[in-house]
Amino acid sequence: MDTPEPADGLAVTDRTRLRRHDREGSHERADLYEVLDAGFVCHLGLQTPDGPMVLPTSYGRHGDRLYLHGSVASRSLRAALDRVPMCVTVTHVDGVVVARSVFEHALNYRSAIIYGTPGVLTEPEDKRAGMHAIAEQIAPGQWGYAREPSDEELAVTTVLVLPLEEASVKVRTGPPLDGGGPDADRPVWAGEIPLRTVRLEPRPDPSLRGQVPLPPHLAGPGVAGGAPPWTPTG
Amino acid sequence: MDTPEPADGLAVTDRTRLRRHDREGSHERADLYEVLDAGFVCHLGLQTPDGPMVLPTSYGRHGDRLYLHGSVASRSLRAALDRVPMCVTVTHVDGVVVARSVFEHALNYRSAIIYGTPGVLTEPEDKRAGMHAIAEQIAPGQWGYAREPSDEELAVTTVLVLPLEEASVKVRTGPPLDGGGPDADRPVWAGEIPLRTVRLEPRPDPSLRGQVPLPPHLAGPGVAGGAPPWTPTG
Repeated sequence: MDTPEPADGLAVTDRTRLRRHDREGSHERADLYEVLDAGFVCHLGLQTPDGPMVLPTSYGRHGDRLYLHGSVASRSLRAALDRVPMCVTVTHVDGVVVARSVFEHALNYRSAIIYGTPGVLTEPEDKRAGMHAIAEQIAPGQWGYAREPSDEELAVTTVLVLPLEEASVKVRTGPPLDGGGPDADRPVWAGEIPLRTVRLEPRPDPSLRGQVPLPPHLAGPGVAGGAPPWTPTG
Repeated sequence: MDTPEPADGLAVTDRTRLRRHDREGSHERADLYEVLDAGFVCHLGLQTPDGPMVLPTSYGRHGDRLYLHGSVASRSLRAALDRVPMCVTVTHVDGVVVARSVFEHALNYRSAIIYGTPGVLTEPEDKRAGMHAIAEQIAPGQWGYAREPSDEELAVTTVLVLPLEEASVKVRTGPPLDGGGPDADRPVWAGEIPLRTVRLEPRPDPSLRGQVPLPPHLAGPGVAGGAPPWTPTG
C-alpha cells in the first residue's frame, strides 16, 4: 500500500480521513473490530453497469479479513463480483438523540466504512473457512453442531474475502449538544432514547422430530450480542 | 419512465426483477412503504471518483418521496450529490434461522432496495418539508414540540429527495427449509431466534433545567416501532 498506515491502525486516505467534527472517529484496528464483531449484517456497495447497488448481506470477521456472503447477489452479478472496488458499511443504531431543536436531533450509533477490492474465493478450503467465519459470527457454536457444508454445497456458495486495510470508524454517544446553548431554557424534554437489538424466545421449527433441547450455545447471549430478555431454558 | 409500471406497483427493471427463488419478493408500493415506515436509517450508495461509497443516514418517507439526510456526507462530497444515480437500501433483520446444516442457515429479514437519481433540495420550504419528514420518521411528534429549524439552520442542512419509482422488496420469514430433507433426522435443534429492536428507558439530558416530563409522544412505542420493554412514565 502506498498510503500511510500506523502500526496498529488502518490506512488513512482521502476517503477515510476524519473531518474536524468527527470527534469520535477512529482509525484504530481495535475500534474497527469492535464494531464489526457486534453485528453480522453489512451493506455492500459496488458499481454495476446499471449504476450503484447496495446489497445487505451477512459477514464474518476472522483476523484482518472480512468474509462476505456473496450469494445474495443475482446470478448474473455474482460472476462480476471478483476484484471490483467495493465499500462495506456496518451500522449499529444505539439510540435517538432528542434535542430542544429539531436541527440538533441526532442518532447515537457506531459505524464502520471499509473500502477495498474483495476477491471471490474459489478453493473449497478457503470457502469453508469463509463459511465458518460467517456462521460463527451469526450464531457462535453452530459450526460443529450443525452439519458442515459438503463439497457440493461449497461449490454453489459464493464467498468474498476483503482484507481490512482501509477503513474509518465513527461513534456518537451521549446527550444532545444544545444543553448549553440558547435553546437550553426551553421547557422541552431532551435526552436519549436508547435502542437495543434483543433476542426473543427461540421458536423451534414445527417440523423438528422428537424432543431436541435448545443447545447451550444458542441459549446464551451470543446471537446478536446483548443479554436476552427471555429466560434461557435450553 | 419507459419501464412498465403496474397501476399500484413499482417499475420492474432488470435490476429490480425478482428471481425465481425470491418467493417473498414484491414490487407493490404498499409492501415498499411498510418496510420503509418500519425504520429510519438507510444505507445510501453512490459512485464517487474514488469508487463506491455506502453511507448510513436517516430518512423520512412522505407519500411517494423519500427524503434523505445528506449532511452525513463530507463537505466535498455534498456538492456532488445532486442528480447522480444512487441506490438506497433499508434492511430490518428479524431473526436468525438456525438449520440442521450450516448451508441452510439464513436470516429472516425485510429489505427494500430503491434505485433513482435524487436531487438536492435548494428551496427553504422544500428543505423544511424534508426535515419534517425525517424528524417525524425518527421521533413522531417532535415537530411542533421541539423548536423548528431557522432559516440559517435550513441553509446549512443538506436534504435529498428521491422519488419512489424503481424498487424491489424482499422478505424472508419462517423456519429453516431443511425440515423435510435428508438432514431432518439429525438430532440437532432447528428453528428461529427472533430479533427485535426495542427501546430502553429514556435518559434525560443531564443538563435539563428543572423538571421537564417526558412528553407522551416520546413515551409511546413510536420511536423504532415495537412496544417498549420499559413501562412508560411520561
